[in-house]
Amino acid sequence: MSTNRQYRLAHRPVGAAQETDWDLVTEPVPDPGDGQFVVQLQQLSLDPAMRGWMNAGKSYIPPVEIGQVMRAYGTGAVVASRHPDFPVGELVTGEFGVQEYALSDGRGVRRIDRELPVPTSAYLGLLGLTGLTAYFGLLDVGRFQSGQTVVVSGAAGAVGSTVGQIAKLHGGRVIGIAGGTEKCRYLVNELGFDAAIDYKSENVRQALRAHAPGGVDVFFDNVGGDILDDGLLRLAQGATVVICGAVSQYNSTAGAQGPNNYLALLIARARMEGFVVTDYEDRYAEAIDALAQWLADGRLHNVEDIVHDSILAFPRTLTRLFTGENTGKLILELERMA
Amino acid sequence: MSTNRQYRLAHRPVGAAQETDWDLVTEPVPDPGDGQFVVQLQQLSLDPAMRGWMNAGKSYIPPVEIGQVMRAYGTGAVVASRHPDFPVGELVTGEFGVQEYALSDGRGVRRIDRELPVPTSAYLGLLGLTGLTAYFGLLDVGRFQSGQTVVVSGAAGAVGSTVGQIAKLHGGRVIGIAGGTEKCRYLVNELGFDAAIDYKSENVRQALRAHAPGGVDVFFDNVGGDILDDGLLRLAQGATVVICGAVSQYNSTAGAQGPNNYLALLIARARMEGFVVTDYEDRYAEAIDALAQWLADGRLHNVEDIVHDSILAFPRTLTRLFTGENTGKLILELERMA
Repeated sequence: MSTNRQYRLAHRPVGAAQETDWDLVTEPVPDPGDGQFVVQLQQLSLDPAMRGWMNAGKSYIPPVEIGQVMRAYGTGAVVASRHPDFPVGELVTGEFGVQEYALSDGRGVRRIDRELPVPTSAYLGLLGLTGLTAYFGLLDVGRFQSGQTVVVSGAAGAVGSTVGQIAKLHGGRVIGIAGGTEKCRYLVNELGFDAAIDYKSENVRQALRAHAPGGVDVFFDNVGGDILDDGLLRLAQGATVVICGAVSQYNSTAGAQGPNNYLALLIARARMEGFVVTDYEDRYAEAIDALAQWLADGRLHNVEDIVHDSILAFPRTLTRLFTGENTGKLILELERMA
Repeated sequence: MSTNRQYRLAHRPVGAAQETDWDLVTEPVPDPGDGQFVVQLQQLSLDPAMRGWMNAGKSYIPPVEIGQVMRAYGTGAVVASRHPDFPVGELVTGEFGVQEYALSDGRGVRRIDRELPVPTSAYLGLLGLTGLTAYFGLLDVGRFQSGQTVVVSGAAGAVGSTVGQIAKLHGGRVIGIAGGTEKCRYLVNELGFDAAIDYKSENVRQALRAHAPGGVDVFFDNVGGDILDDGLLRLAQGATVVICGAVSQYNSTAGAQGPNNYLALLIARARMEGFVVTDYEDRYAEAIDALAQWLADGRLHNVEDIVHDSILAFPRTLTRLFTGENTGKLILELERMA
């Protein structure tokens, strides 16, 4: 077998992650022990949460330690196996890390159903944590009801675009906030959002007033910062602010900027709630069934941004998440060259 | 009859309210029309919320307009009446304004039960909005359960001291945050709090770590600012942050300071929720029954800070709420001299 290239965390970044925060390590591909198997990675999921995993200290999951292979979800094929449930040739998805080959004992690994009329990559997006986050965040944490007005920030991102689509197919009125006219046009024309606000060229506060005159019932926030503050001022009575992430804040060296308008929660008798999708693990099956059906029916677009390159492209591809460059689920599809 | 002195709002304050924000107006005491009565005010309730009512713009209730008598709750005696339900001599409580005599048609006015072994002033505190705010904020919004750890900011204030006592008599572990050793000693020695943190001399973040090693289940916030931020870092999984007020922020000219640590809501899967007690109006009777019983049984201390003076003391007495000077429910008891 060939060698295994992997990215290990070398430094905890200050501000945005840099190329120098990583060590590229080359090792022999491991041999599986009893009850183990080796996966050759095909696709890596690149997620905003990765930036948080690089920080020290308490969070919803332990940080990646210095010297550890960077955490990442991926898909791949079993290429060597001493595990009865994962024979060679099986397609799988799991938390395999940023590397070309991963050794696994099967814990947390799901088999990919080749019969489903969905691409493998959907297991990293719509049928993976992205779709699950959107599903439980909107329907469970956000308690969304048909007829309500939903505003999604980071609306062109993987989670945001899914939240908006799920709200639409449940009879919601959906307003997306995204950066750039192209993204906004995409949300309205391709994904069926009722309106989109370009935060780069529009006054978000005024635009929300125009598009949500009756107030916002669910504000699904992936972004934080000023956009969250603008959203707080438009809450309908009894609204919910779902705190899913704060991509505008992850690279901040000054610490996160809190929502100065939080007293709007009092005026609107509203609730701001955080959640972590892995808490819903015992209900994943319900959600995946629903999401797969919507995807198969064409009611849900699988919005992907797939970069075809070698693993060496990982550091620079990751930065696209934080510069507003990508639309939809960012995936690095590994090619075997370079 | 004599004249009626009243304070009307002259200017919307910038920062703290000043003497010059008020017009002292002297009018003849009105005659009651059909279905009306006149109350001679005995006690005025002074509340942190008053600062918010002086601001223009949307809030949970309309602002006091320039030239209007300042809004205030009070108790008093009916001294003239053409209303069958409120004969002369009746003791009543209601939103009568900052004045010596008020004309009323009975809407929102409650009769004071002279049979109950509680002082009249309790109707402005424990049996009024203060007690109701503490009761519904802790038990309903906060979903407090026996055995949980509760942290109350502004703990020596009227609402805060009541929240802590209600949590104690329901089997909670209660930590108060207040300013000064005297207040802290009072909370622990007189009111039975398990611990008190003096934010003026202690590092609140460290003290919370020491007093709530297992995390905080309910953080009842009256204060905002840095203390809210410190509390967010100690939340237990599934915690609730009850946003009752933000007395540290009301006089801020730079706008409120948002909780920069709000992403702790995500890590702790926690919820921050605002409420307004008047939404619970149809459940007031349940709460007042419970509060009156606890008060009569001596299980609840009626913590009052009564200033005996004429109505001319209103402007300077109000400022005590924002300078950390008062403990418990602040009441101006009107004396009939100058």
